[in-house]
Amino acid sequence: MSTDLSSASRSADDVAAGAVTRGPIAGSTKHYLHVDHLRIPQRRVHLTNGEHLDLYDTSGPYTDETADIDVHAGLPPVRAQWPRPEPLQTAAGHPAATQLAWARAGLITDEMRFIAAREGCTAEKVRSEVAAGRAVIPANHRHPESEPMIIGKAFTVKINANIGNSAVTSSIGEEVEKMVWATRWGADTIMDLSTGNDIHLTREWILRNSPVPVGTVPIYQALEKVKGDPAALTWEIFRDTVIEQAEQGVDYMTVHAGVLWRYVPLTADRVTGIVSRGGSIMAAWCLAHRSESFLYTHFAELCEIFARYDITFSLGDGLRPGSIADANDAAQFAELETLGELTKIAKHHGVQVMIEGPGHVPMDKIAENVRREEELCEEAPFYTLGPLATDIAPAYDHITSAIGAAMIAQAGTAMLCYVTPKEHLGLPDRDDVKTGVITYKIAAHAADLAKGHPRAQERDDALSRARFEFRWTDQFNLALDPDTAREYHDETLPAEQAKTAHFCSMCGPKFCSMRISADVRAYAQKHPASMTLPLEAL
Amino acid sequence: MSTDLSSASRSADDVAAGAVTRGPIAGSTKHYLHVDHLRIPQRRVHLTNGEHLDLYDTSGPYTDETADIDVHAGLPPVRAQWPRPEPLQTAAGHPAATQLAWARAGLITDEMRFIAAREGCTAEKVRSEVAAGRAVIPANHRHPESEPMIIGKAFTVKINANIGNSAVTSSIGEEVEKMVWATRWGADTIMDLSTGNDIHLTREWILRNSPVPVGTVPIYQALEKVKGDPAALTWEIFRDTVIEQAEQGVDYMTVHAGVLWRYVPLTADRVTGIVSRGGSIMAAWCLAHRSESFLYTHFAELCEIFARYDITFSLGDGLRPGSIADANDAAQFAELETLGELTKIAKHHGVQVMIEGPGHVPMDKIAENVRREEELCEEAPFYTLGPLATDIAPAYDHITSAIGAAMIAQAGTAMLCYVTPKEHLGLPDRDDVKTGVITYKIAAHAADLAKGHPRAQERDDALSRARFEFRWTDQFNLALDPDTAREYHDETLPAEQAKTAHFCSMCGPKFCSMRISADVRAYAQKHPASMTLPLEAL
Repeated sequence: MSTDLSSASRSADDVAAGAVTRGPIAGSTKHYLHVDHLRIPQRRVHLTNGEHLDLYDTSGPYTDETADIDVHAGLPPVRAQWPRPEPLQTAAGHPAATQLAWARAGLITDEMRFIAAREGCTAEKVRSEVAAGRAVIPANHRHPESEPMIIGKAFTVKINANIGNSAVTSSIGEEVEKMVWATRWGADTIMDLSTGNDIHLTREWILRNSPVPVGTVPIYQALEKVKGDPAALTWEIFRDTVIEQAEQGVDYMTVHAGVLWRYVPLTADRVTGIVSRGGSIMAAWCLAHRSESFLYTHFAELCEIFARYDITFSLGDGLRPGSIADANDAAQFAELETLGELTKIAKHHGVQVMIEGPGHVPMDKIAENVRREEELCEEAPFYTLGPLATDIAPAYDHITSAIGAAMIAQAGTAMLCYVTPKEHLGLPDRDDVKTGVITYKIAAHAADLAKGHPRAQERDDALSRARFEFRWTDQFNLALDPDTAREYHDETLPAEQAKTAHFCSMCGPKFCSMRISADVRAYAQKHPASMTLPLEAL
Repeated sequence: MSTDLSSASRSADDVAAGAVTRGPIAGSTKHYLHVDHLRIPQRRVHLTNGEHLDLYDTSGPYTDETADIDVHAGLPPVRAQWPRPEPLQTAAGHPAATQLAWARAGLITDEMRFIAAREGCTAEKVRSEVAAGRAVIPANHRHPESEPMIIGKAFTVKINANIGNSAVTSSIGEEVEKMVWATRWGADTIMDLSTGNDIHLTREWILRNSPVPVGTVPIYQALEKVKGDPAALTWEIFRDTVIEQAEQGVDYMTVHAGVLWRYVPLTADRVTGIVSRGGSIMAAWCLAHRSESFLYTHFAELCEIFARYDITFSLGDGLRPGSIADANDAAQFAELETLGELTKIAKHHGVQVMIEGPGHVPMDKIAENVRREEELCEEAPFYTLGPLATDIAPAYDHITSAIGAAMIAQAGTAMLCYVTPKEHLGLPDRDDVKTGVITYKIAAHAADLAKGHPRAQERDDALSRARFEFRWTDQFNLALDPDTAREYHDETLPAEQAKTAHFCSMCGPKFCSMRISADVRAYAQKHPASMTLPLEAL
């Protein structure tokens, strides 16, 4: 937090102040709910019939026209003003200053109150789900710029967007804008997966400007420190990297501590071996040293660090399947069993935990992933990458994976890691990030609907009513992506009066089922007898 | 068939010979299986390791470099040369020259043999599924240019692409090219939903050039004949329209005969009323005339016509839900019950039947649609539009619906009607058609995988092996859309040598899990002891 970002501005002069995307999403304004000293952001969509609809809002101050934004200074550290309970002694014998420890002690924090207002539930429900380990609140004390959010199956399904440069492409400026851009369209968390140069600085820029929790995979930076040679990694290098990132404010970290030495041979006959970067690094390390993973043997020490900052574990699935053929195999489920064991250790230390899941899984094997995860990991929030329901559509893997993502979320997964059209082919650009986020908002929302989340259907009904009443502008503005909806409509009927026309280019003016159906309704009101008469014959 | 297309060439001079897309899909050639006098097309993908993979091929002669194509003359009427069994007397007392009548009589037609070779099963399996009414072969005797295909849950899941102009946009030439384009990417059938001018001529051009079955909704043209006034429709106008289209060779027709007078009031309180064009037309007709639908009262006469040509019924769901709020409601299921009754009547006349389904349905209500359809309609093939799993993403409804489509296909739906990104907003252009088709191939294939179709996983495995072995060109060519996969890859790594590089832009050269994983595998082969030792501790 003490890093002076302005001193870094020359080395990253492609991020000029104001270079990030600003202003509200079409048809909406920023609205704040006030609960005591808390100010909870919402996106208020204004309808042409005088009504409005308030939506969950992940976009931070960037969509507030009245907010001062200076990317060199970062966002205001709002959470730093909130009272924070004392660290509590845990069963493991070390203090924990975590939402889990406080929840278990019956304390309701400001983060929990903020979340309750966002989700439309009681703060007690938030507390009890966190206390049970069924939900996590990723909120490093050193990331006070973030707006608290919760990941758990009792709440709305969340989505994560990965950003990050690699040795081959991208720049810091692009990554900050990708974060602003991804949260604008609905990303609930961001993972910075940078592997190239300037890892530390890129992360600093992202954290100081991010209104959502930020996750990382510390082993990536650790590997950079040893010039890419997995065998040269040590526990000390890894630990110091974790502390470095913890100090910066990373909210959750992927740790592949379940990739045990003895599991590596289980992958030898797979069609696609080990596809997780972290998993392959640790497998290589175990084989080179002929010994057990230092992430596993030092796991308790890691817990002590995490407990101080309130970093949430995202226990990585280093042996996840990389193809349909490898789904639900012995390697994958062996690792999951170890993740269950590690979950208990983390919670013993008062540390919040979620569990990462696959990957590539055919539809008939999806539900089993959730069932096993819940059984082995005490219902810790499941956080899956897709899964892709088939391997045969590179360039469309946002879609192959949205199918799997919607289904696994319906089955109880709490957060979905997005996949962009560039998956397996290249790094996502700005358009790909938006496509990935919107696609995953669809999957998450479809699951909220199927799970009967009390607020989910409001938006569907509002949009469908607008559609039936030919309120085109409202239909656009209630959409996940108003700009593209309007653009597509205007391609064939650009005239402004068409926005109120009682037809569209699909069927033309004479041939509109919506219009005929409205006529039917009008007829029914005028001639109730002719409508009800035949009904009696039912 | 007797229509001279060349005489129509002036009025449709925007279709020049050769204006349609030609040539094989990247990396593949046309290959033919020979079974007696039958020549079954396949797409052969040639791999860089010397292997090849043969795929189901819907694209017709257009992807055969050696084929003569003249869109003014149409495709060769191959089926006209095949021996056709005599019409058979049905229980209804009229003769039927249909695949259903022949299958029930134990006859195996050339169409069934052709399909068996395409699907990789026995001809007896094809016959018995058709005889049971669990599968249909839409093949009007007057459409001899078509390559036989089957729609039924025991076979690969099929997809349909809608094309057709409306009063507002499009031209005949564009529609023919859309047909060629849609079948190139995998459309198993085409529906011509034209509602504007030149309906008859557009359909003639499409039929004479289509290698796949063509479906229509005859009420659209009937309504044009009465200048768009539903109340002016009569049974006679409708019947003559059906005969006109039957003579042209339409393979299946959507008939909304289940929209009964007494069901109309059930839609009055819906969020989106009646959204089917056919449904709204018939509802308006019933109310205007205060009498029962002529489609229902004359259904047996319709069956006699269908039986002569072997046209397949696609019993339309005129009361399908148009929003999440209206899913699985009384109106929808009342109509489905009537469709079950009509199914029995059609089969009694020896006529093949499939049943259309929704629409907009949340994930938790999808399976019930299949269960009820199978129960009420004697497992007649189900043919659904999506369903969209949420209403909130206009401009992305190919995705919202692919989620529902994959799930409903897994549950037993036999054919999926595609949805394009323009759904609810405008008419699809060429790019939208391709996006819709590829998206639905994903949904259909994901379902084939989940249902354990014997050939489905071959392609996934071949692609995943290519991916793991860094055979980039093979990965592209095995994809549903090789062109876009290659294009995305080349955006960040355009150099030709990168096609064989053992890394990609996602992680860069030093940081590739696939490379590390290959190293692990090589290490295992070299040091089997260090791999197997820890395994014993399991």
